Amino acid sequence: MRFDSAGLQVLSREECMRLMASCPIGRIVFTDRALPAVQPVNFYLDGEDIVIRTTAGSKLAAATRRTIVAFEVDDFDTVARTGWSVTAVGHARAAEDPAETARLAALPLTPWAPGSRDHFIVIAAEQISGRRILRAA
Amino acid sequence: MRFDSAGLQVLSREECMRLMASCPIGRIVFTDRALPAVQPVNFYLDGEDIVIRTTAGSKLAAATRRTIVAFEVDDFDTVARTGWSVTAVGHARAAEDPAETARLAALPLTPWAPGSRDHFIVIAAEQISGRRILRAA
Repeated sequence: MRFDSAGLQVLSREECMRLMASCPIGRIVFTDRALPAVQPVNFYLDGEDIVIRTTAGSKLAAATRRTIVAFEVDDFDTVARTGWSVTAVGHARAAEDPAETARLAALPLTPWAPGSRDHFIVIAAEQISGRRILRAA
Repeated sequence: MRFDSAGLQVLSREECMRLMASCPIGRIVFTDRALPAVQPVNFYLDGEDIVIRTTAGSKLAAATRRTIVAFEVDDFDTVARTGWSVTAVGHARAAEDPAETARLAALPLTPWAPGSRDHFIVIAAEQISGRRILRAA
């Protein structure tokens, strides 16, 4: 096991991907009118791409068009004070090709929020890092 | 109840503060070398200030010095597909006054990560917004 300077276990890319796939909710981190912004979304991990379903007119769709975003997933046990987090950083793009959109629409990704959501944001997990807090000795 | 254009319930500032105080873990959103960054941390809500305990030499301490950050807290039920999220945006600063540092050190805020952490980051919740996803009808 490898630990960082803060004493947290450093997770491998493989472990990060496995943990990310285990969780239906993540948080997309972007910039909105020059301010840091964050929005929880449900997502599907399609290979190493993070797929989010939203509406074409949403703030999220506008703010993440051709930009670099972060995407964070975590799970903590507040009683044991243990847990993990994984953050991917990469380019976000809107799926525009009809064949790709049709393929993404067939993924097991149903929006939690109400309304029709047929706009797909695809984030490439170009950099990925993960940490785990182990139970204190 | 008020709903936004995405069909999510809009929470009042009072409700946002109450929910934020109910949760020990949040995510600080900032910029690290011009890239969006996010890090989960445990925190204490001190009035309307978010207090985080870290080490003076940490990346988080360096990246959040005199800047505007976002701070997000959420809780989702992945079976019922319901939940809420609250995001505060405001100026972050390092506590430097010895009297303030002593007061913050006495708060019920114990770092989850190992090691000594005697550097306090204080975020003023200047803007706050919250949303709730209700159970689908």
